[in-house]
Amino acid sequence: MTPRTERAHQFFLDLQDKISEAIATIDGQRFHTDTWDRPAGGGGRSRVLQDGPVIEKGGVMVSSVMGEMSEAFAQQFPGRGRRFAATGMSLILHPRNPHAPTVHANFRYLEKGEGEDTVAWFGGGADLTPHVLYADDAVHFHQVWKNVCDRSQVVSHPALKKWCDEYFYIPHRKEARGVGGIFFDYLGIDAPDLGGRAVDLELAFAFAKDAGGSFLDAYVPILERRKDAAFTEAERDWQLHRRGRYVEFNLVYDRGTTFGLKTDGRVESILVSLPSPVKWTYGHEPSPNSKEAELVEVLQRPRNWVS
Amino acid sequence: MTPRTERAHQFFLDLQDKISEAIATIDGQRFHTDTWDRPAGGGGRSRVLQDGPVIEKGGVMVSSVMGEMSEAFAQQFPGRGRRFAATGMSLILHPRNPHAPTVHANFRYLEKGEGEDTVAWFGGGADLTPHVLYADDAVHFHQVWKNVCDRSQVVSHPALKKWCDEYFYIPHRKEARGVGGIFFDYLGIDAPDLGGRAVDLELAFAFAKDAGGSFLDAYVPILERRKDAAFTEAERDWQLHRRGRYVEFNLVYDRGTTFGLKTDGRVESILVSLPSPVKWTYGHEPSPNSKEAELVEVLQRPRNWVS
Repeated sequence: MTPRTERAHQFFLDLQDKISEAIATIDGQRFHTDTWDRPAGGGGRSRVLQDGPVIEKGGVMVSSVMGEMSEAFAQQFPGRGRRFAATGMSLILHPRNPHAPTVHANFRYLEKGEGEDTVAWFGGGADLTPHVLYADDAVHFHQVWKNVCDRSQVVSHPALKKWCDEYFYIPHRKEARGVGGIFFDYLGIDAPDLGGRAVDLELAFAFAKDAGGSFLDAYVPILERRKDAAFTEAERDWQLHRRGRYVEFNLVYDRGTTFGLKTDGRVESILVSLPSPVKWTYGHEPSPNSKEAELVEVLQRPRNWVS
Repeated sequence: MTPRTERAHQFFLDLQDKISEAIATIDGQRFHTDTWDRPAGGGGRSRVLQDGPVIEKGGVMVSSVMGEMSEAFAQQFPGRGRRFAATGMSLILHPRNPHAPTVHANFRYLEKGEGEDTVAWFGGGADLTPHVLYADDAVHFHQVWKNVCDRSQVVSHPALKKWCDEYFYIPHRKEARGVGGIFFDYLGIDAPDLGGRAVDLELAFAFAKDAGGSFLDAYVPILERRKDAAFTEAERDWQLHRRGRYVEFNLVYDRGTTFGLKTDGRVESILVSLPSPVKWTYGHEPSPNSKEAELVEVLQRPRNWVS
């Protein structure tokens, strides 16, 4: 590992500790930890909490992988050659209460190439998926990320907000996965067609650190105020159907998931992102003018929650 | 529509009637019928049965679509040009009882090209996905398909059985979706690299008719003897987790599903294939030497059930 890969890896491990401890305190149940080696190089530490009173299924994962990409795969990334190293943290929390939104976040550092030809970048983001729309939750979540972006010299909040809306989109449903957040990639390299920017890598690292360190500020207040809300059977049923859309996005479109599955990644760590239980009903539609219909309208036309 | 497309379409509509009526009689609940038009040409008739006492979710769908494929898409198929017409019937039945296996079947006729350059072929198959392994169910299912293949002059049962095992395989799980059945494609054109054979199209049609007409013989005796079996909560839970594998296959690998989703197909008709409810649990493994473990072993090493 290069020194920066090492530093990023350590940051992700510390962040995993901090986040999993905070979520475990709210839930009351502890995360189960698995450490694993990747035969082709690297490994990871997965923390999973299932069937907790607050978190129905959640994972906070760190992995660090290195080696050679396949030729076809390498061509999809900037940088010459097939050698790479990647380290990152990703999390998904699916609360049990239908009023509490699902959240996902991911922060990663990649290096590709050799010697002088090495390119390196940071990527990541965070997005919120409510089952019942609360404008104040969406505003709070977006405000935290806007603040993080505004205090960095290397990113623009409107660009990262837009990227998130575009990325977490389910074309066959013609709707967004959720109410968005931020998304960034290739931060540190000159790759305008990919959204990358040739910024100082240490400033990119500082931004990723600030964003990762802000995750709990963005999500915990929302979880705290929704986790014990009274809910109906109909709301629970709606939540399980919305989870179906989450599965559709992750298995059909999500680059991280399909990448992992097709490159012999650790299946359990990749698919811990899938919610459970989940339902699919033919012709399942919200009643007109219901709060469920209101959510779908917002997902069909992403809003600017903060200005 | 060409006369043969018309005849195939009519055959699929009649088959849909016959199969949905037989299944509705067993279930006691009727199928709901939706007919729909495809804006770019064609349409379909979807029959869906949900929350029945025997069938928890099932669909028997006929569609007939025509027009022009995208250039990129057209290149994946034999035949010049982008014009095509396709008609087919597909069905998936997810019984409620964990002892009763899920079944899928599909039969289709395609034409591509124009005038002298038109190529045409039949494709399809049927496969069984048990949650609890019963060797006699697998033997019966395979025996029906072997008999169908053996009385045709245009296919070989071992080839179609092998193709099915290879197609319904989940690489990231390193296991088959189920215990297989038969799969064939490009029957009627000289495309050895795709598994196609230049057989007489009327003989190919006769085979597809015989196979479609044999579906009830293949499945109904199995459904009848398992639908009322006593089951435990643990068996139900295992079934919901196995359904997760079914979702993974359909959304990540199935060509029909990903084709439909990415070409603006009718989403509800495509995703009626997904079971419900479904569970995913991190690190979910059968106990050693259990009957669940026995099923997984068979899925990892497909067997020849008939000789």
